[in-house]
Amino acid sequence: MTAGTALVVSAHSADFVWRAGGAIALHAGEGMDVTVVCLSYGERGESAKLWRQDGMTLDRVKSERRKEAENAAKALGVADVQFWDLGDYPIELSQASLFRLSDLFRKIRPSFMLTHSREDPYNRDHPLVSQFAQEARIVAQAHGHEPDVKVIGAPPVMLFEPHQPEQCRWMPNTLLDITPVWDKKLAAIKCMAGQEHLWEYYTRVALQRGAQAARNSDKKITYGEAYEAVFPHVLETLVPTEGRG
Amino acid sequence: MTAGTALVVSAHSADFVWRAGGAIALHAGEGMDVTVVCLSYGERGESAKLWRQDGMTLDRVKSERRKEAENAAKALGVADVQFWDLGDYPIELSQASLFRLSDLFRKIRPSFMLTHSREDPYNRDHPLVSQFAQEARIVAQAHGHEPDVKVIGAPPVMLFEPHQPEQCRWMPNTLLDITPVWDKKLAAIKCMAGQEHLWEYYTRVALQRGAQAARNSDKKITYGEAYEAVFPHVLETLVPTEGRG
Amino acid sequence: MTAGTALVVSAHSADFVWRAGGAIALHAGEGMDVTVVCLSYGERGESAKLWRQDGMTLDRVKSERRKEAENAAKALGVADVQFWDLGDYPIELSQASLFRLSDLFRKIRPSFMLTHSREDPYNRDHPLVSQFAQEARIVAQAHGHEPDVKVIGAPPVMLFEPHQPEQCRWMPNTLLDITPVWDKKLAAIKCMAGQEHLWEYYTRVALQRGAQAARNSDKKITYGEAYEAVFPHVLETLVPTEGRG
Amino acid sequence: MTAGTALVVSAHSADFVWRAGGAIALHAGEGMDVTVVCLSYGERGESAKLWRQDGMTLDRVKSERRKEAENAAKALGVADVQFWDLGDYPIELSQASLFRLSDLFRKIRPSFMLTHSREDPYNRDHPLVSQFAQEARIVAQAHGHEPDVKVIGAPPVMLFEPHQPEQCRWMPNTLLDITPVWDKKLAAIKCMAGQEHLWEYYTRVALQRGAQAARNSDKKITYGEAYEAVFPHVLETLVPTEGRG
Amino acid sequence: MTAGTALVVSAHSADFVWRAGGAIALHAGEGMDVTVVCLSYGERGESAKLWRQDGMTLDRVKSERRKEAENAAKALGVADVQFWDLGDYPIELSQASLFRLSDLFRKIRPSFMLTHSREDPYNRDHPLVSQFAQEARIVAQAHGHEPDVKVIGAPPVMLFEPHQPEQCRWMPNTLLDITPVWDKKLAAIKCMAGQEHLWEYYTRVALQRGAQAARNSDKKITYGEAYEAVFPHVLETLVPTEGRG
Amino acid sequence: MTAGTALVVSAHSADFVWRAGGAIALHAGEGMDVTVVCLSYGERGESAKLWRQDGMTLDRVKSERRKEAENAAKALGVADVQFWDLGDYPIELSQASLFRLSDLFRKIRPSFMLTHSREDPYNRDHPLVSQFAQEARIVAQAHGHEPDVKVIGAPPVMLFEPHQPEQCRWMPNTLLDITPVWDKKLAAIKCMAGQEHLWEYYTRVALQRGAQAARNSDKKITYGEAYEAVFPHVLETLVPTEGRG
Repeated sequence: MTAGTALVVSAHSADFVWRAGGAIALHAGEGMDVTVVCLSYGERGESAKLWRQDGMTLDRVKSERRKEAENAAKALGVADVQFWDLGDYPIELSQASLFRLSDLFRKIRPSFMLTHSREDPYNRDHPLVSQFAQEARIVAQAHGHEPDVKVIGAPPVMLFEPHQPEQCRWMPNTLLDITPVWDKKLAAIKCMAGQEHLWEYYTRVALQRGAQAARNSDKKITYGEAYEAVFPHVLETLVPTEGRG
Repeated sequence: MTAGTALVVSAHSADFVWRAGGAIALHAGEGMDVTVVCLSYGERGESAKLWRQDGMTLDRVKSERRKEAENAAKALGVADVQFWDLGDYPIELSQASLFRLSDLFRKIRPSFMLTHSREDPYNRDHPLVSQFAQEARIVAQAHGHEPDVKVIGAPPVMLFEPHQPEQCRWMPNTLLDITPVWDKKLAAIKCMAGQEHLWEYYTRVALQRGAQAARNSDKKITYGEAYEAVFPHVLETLVPTEGRG
Repeated sequence: MTAGTALVVSAHSADFVWRAGGAIALHAGEGMDVTVVCLSYGERGESAKLWRQDGMTLDRVKSERRKEAENAAKALGVADVQFWDLGDYPIELSQASLFRLSDLFRKIRPSFMLTHSREDPYNRDHPLVSQFAQEARIVAQAHGHEPDVKVIGAPPVMLFEPHQPEQCRWMPNTLLDITPVWDKKLAAIKCMAGQEHLWEYYTRVALQRGAQAARNSDKKITYGEAYEAVFPHVLETLVPTEGRG
Repeated sequence: MTAGTALVVSAHSADFVWRAGGAIALHAGEGMDVTVVCLSYGERGESAKLWRQDGMTLDRVKSERRKEAENAAKALGVADVQFWDLGDYPIELSQASLFRLSDLFRKIRPSFMLTHSREDPYNRDHPLVSQFAQEARIVAQAHGHEPDVKVIGAPPVMLFEPHQPEQCRWMPNTLLDITPVWDKKLAAIKCMAGQEHLWEYYTRVALQRGAQAARNSDKKITYGEAYEAVFPHVLETLVPTEGRG
Repeated sequence: MTAGTALVVSAHSADFVWRAGGAIALHAGEGMDVTVVCLSYGERGESAKLWRQDGMTLDRVKSERRKEAENAAKALGVADVQFWDLGDYPIELSQASLFRLSDLFRKIRPSFMLTHSREDPYNRDHPLVSQFAQEARIVAQAHGHEPDVKVIGAPPVMLFEPHQPEQCRWMPNTLLDITPVWDKKLAAIKCMAGQEHLWEYYTRVALQRGAQAARNSDKKITYGEAYEAVFPHVLETLVPTEGRG
Repeated sequence: MTAGTALVVSAHSADFVWRAGGAIALHAGEGMDVTVVCLSYGERGESAKLWRQDGMTLDRVKSERRKEAENAAKALGVADVQFWDLGDYPIELSQASLFRLSDLFRKIRPSFMLTHSREDPYNRDHPLVSQFAQEARIVAQAHGHEPDVKVIGAPPVMLFEPHQPEQCRWMPNTLLDITPVWDKKLAAIKCMAGQEHLWEYYTRVALQRGAQAARNSDKKITYGEAYEAVFPHVLETLVPTEGRG
């Protein structure tokens, strides 16, 4: 069992499922404690199906979204899923929330952090959250921020695949083999009852990234997740399978 | 001891020393057979000091450059250094040479290939060689090229740091810790008697990339080499030190 | 007569004239209801000539700028020109204004939206307005924002040509033939008495973009306007003149 | 029935099927004469399955590939499919072939031309063909090249989606609705018996691009093809459905 | 003696030393009045060594940082160094501070302005300050902002070299020869007792940029500083040494 | 009078007029010896008007084009205009021509070199010539190329403004004030009788670049030429008018 922790910062309560469900299940399955922070329920922008029901209210939408996300988190083996309820369209990212996230960084000391892409003309919250999560990481590295609490090091930051990658100028420089945990990701996807139209879409995304991962590595890979690493990969060897075979 | 092989394609006979000496020494030291192909001696463009001697001839320059490179290769633990003598300024990269390099790919079946950057306004040979080496790899992957010889898979391609990185639009997305073999790289650098003005320059490059590698990883790293990976890193884990600690 | 509406979001009260006057006149002439929102009068940054008059006040500048813009709007056939008076240098783009613009999107349901470029090192308000207008469009698409009002679809967004295009990293991927309405655009330009030095400048811009449009299409085009489409063009045919000849 | 012609320049004999089959079927179905030029059979690089058969020869591979491509062309309604047999890995693009393609441009006078992306680190032939086809178009525009034959105008150039789009720095700025002809494209795909592993891959590509086209247009679109337009779209209206509804 | 003034806007109190010390010493030595604005003391993010001391407080850190910066400013010949104490991680850049900086622009009317890079994934304050300083310059150009005070012209803006240049997508399009004042920059660097680990790092940066400046100019240059000019260089001659030999 | 020389490498015999006429006249007027090399007459691609005459032949086109270019060169004060007649569409750039140009570099030892942009989807010869001219400069720097002839240093390379700048991904980072010699450039332009449709086009280009140069510098500038500098500007001062006022 691998010791360690990881942090996933999700703008809306479903993003961590579509975009990082494989990475979460994979590392949770190896014994890591994965914390997922859902900053918003996505109650305005990503709940069309719920809003079509008669008499729907904001509170009921949030409650439904929360249930779905909790179930998905369970299916993925998430250790801790948090809902910060910071609003939606627009999300409100205050300085208090920034420090709350920095404190979380210092508390769990993650081996890596996953969050959204830097640009997204289809969804303004995604780049705002990307910047916010990266800034929280920087604050958590600063010796003068709450000097009595130990600073964190430099955990890698990996950016989720957005819905329409090229338009977001997002570059998949890192492909993760999620074949061993695909069943878990699919189970989590199926918890998102309100967005059933996306189940097949993201299954196809996983198959395309899997095919590309196979072609870039000669390994048998069926399902993949793609990420853009913000910082350089720091390696002790250039042999690609070292320690992973 | 790691099994395996690696291939380094160097435009001029000194490039592999400045730009990849650390990677070579590191992997050779772990038991890999590293093959270095020097396509040219760099007899025109990178031998100013030799040409300042009275009565210098092209043959003598080549001979001096070869001796230096052979000594450096020895210092780095290179298994096989080849000199193809394809001319310099301009280098002549024929189809016969392309197939020769493809055949070498199939013969040694490298775990990775190192070569030059895609652009370099200071040196036209470097991008030509980068394209040539990448094309040879593609030909070696084609089932219909010499169908009786087994094709290769998809070895990663890492591009050397050029002399003035930003002007070459080269992005260091991969940093290699070469601290354990720095003494060997320095010994190899000192074999290049004709370019003594570069010894300190490339020592400083290694220190800067080492400092950056440390800052991106929290590890103690003093000397580094930077590369641009052409293809995505295909991973089985996002934990950066997995299998390397 | 074409049914339909269009929305133009202009940072300062003159921008819609220089940058989109042709598109406005063209579509208004075909029967569209074009709404122009001037977020600021540009009373600080773009009114040098007025400020050179003795005893000028902020209110008088705004009043002059409004008159000019109203006259220009009339010359172009604008159905509705609105002045939101949100300040200038810096412009203040509050959440209330964001929702006001979203509501306008839902009310008029435009076939397309025109606004500023994403970057502009010469004018900070322009990129801020570009982001603001795009965010308002996204909010207007969200089912959970004022759920009783029908959401909008996905109207294309076209970004105006900035004053110094290359420095703004703006790419003219769309050229509009405005030859048939050039006289109207010129009349509107001449309403901007306070910026007479720009009349010839933007006449030349129209001639250059017209010449480029002609060269890219084999059509006789004298005057053009250039835009950067944010989203892909979704087409039912690749034949360029289909339905337009 | 639309008058007119189109030209597709395909590096290997299967590329036009995977990458442009929808556009071909769509326009052929509307009465256009579509000419497809296959510069190579792809006999070395894209025929792995055939080469696994005992006693396979280069001629038999070419013959099989030709049959497949002819059947696919028929399924798509191609008016003329040509096989220039210029070799594979590397392809040989001589000046004689350049003039042959220029002459073809002048003979058929296409409304648009489709060809490969500008970059592709997985396939060297693709960018070479892209450049070659674009150069032929430029030569065909030159009054002094065969001055007795009428020059062509400026047909748009659309670049195919490559296998791993982001790595090829290819930007899908144009999405074509191919839903009405998907059955024809699928039939053509199924003619490529030697590359059965790609059938599902390219079906998924069509579904993803279709979903994106729908999201960018509010239309019901199930299958799409994506292109990068090299030149600006020259328009007479910014209303996206003008003349297409 | 050259008349004139220059303005340096530094996020943290040490940035102007590492990143612009050479330019400051050079121009101060020629008689210019150089004003340095330190927006923050960097009391949280860049004072690790101080925070390791027992009983350290925020006030003591600020006080130490101020002393170091004042000494460095003196060593460089700075005419006026200002400490605005706007906080650190995050820095707080209010509209009042914006107008304060605009007023300073108008008061000193600098020949050029130096500040941070547009992006920096390692330090969020740097891009915020870059944008802030550029916006202040734009406000100072606006006739309607404090109309009784004369507007400034268009002083060039040069962006400092960040710690890891390529990751910040920063392009060194301008190299300044600081060889004649290197001793002063080194003396200033040595005032920064709290960050001794950076002394050698930035000495190497100066040597590398010096070597590159020499290679791009044929001049004897040992130490250099690199900048990214935001705006085009406006020249009266293309001869590089005109008026500078 | 300034001593010194400059080199302009023009793909077709008219390019140096439209794209660099101002720079040539300006420096020639200051006493420099400017050499212009026209690699091709542009007899195929840029001579539409001539080819419309009855009985026109390739030789007569070349002869007309030569006369025009000689007259323009005279109007600009060119010291030496050379016609290498290397063909057109496609131009043929052999190794012999490469060495011929290298030798010319060594003979005249220019203070700077002007040539075409790196990309141009409208004209394949332009990027080929850009690369060719830059390669010749590199060869001329190599000590081992004709070791008896003194190598050149590192003259700056400035790239001409192409016809449709943004589509060529060309960035005008350098603006030259050509107001004092505009009459000479206009006279040279009017020598190009065969391309009269471009006279006004390039007059407008000069006015737009002049307006931009003025806005970036506070100087009175009416006419400008824009260039992309390939290499960093190496400066001894950041004060923009030093030595030029």
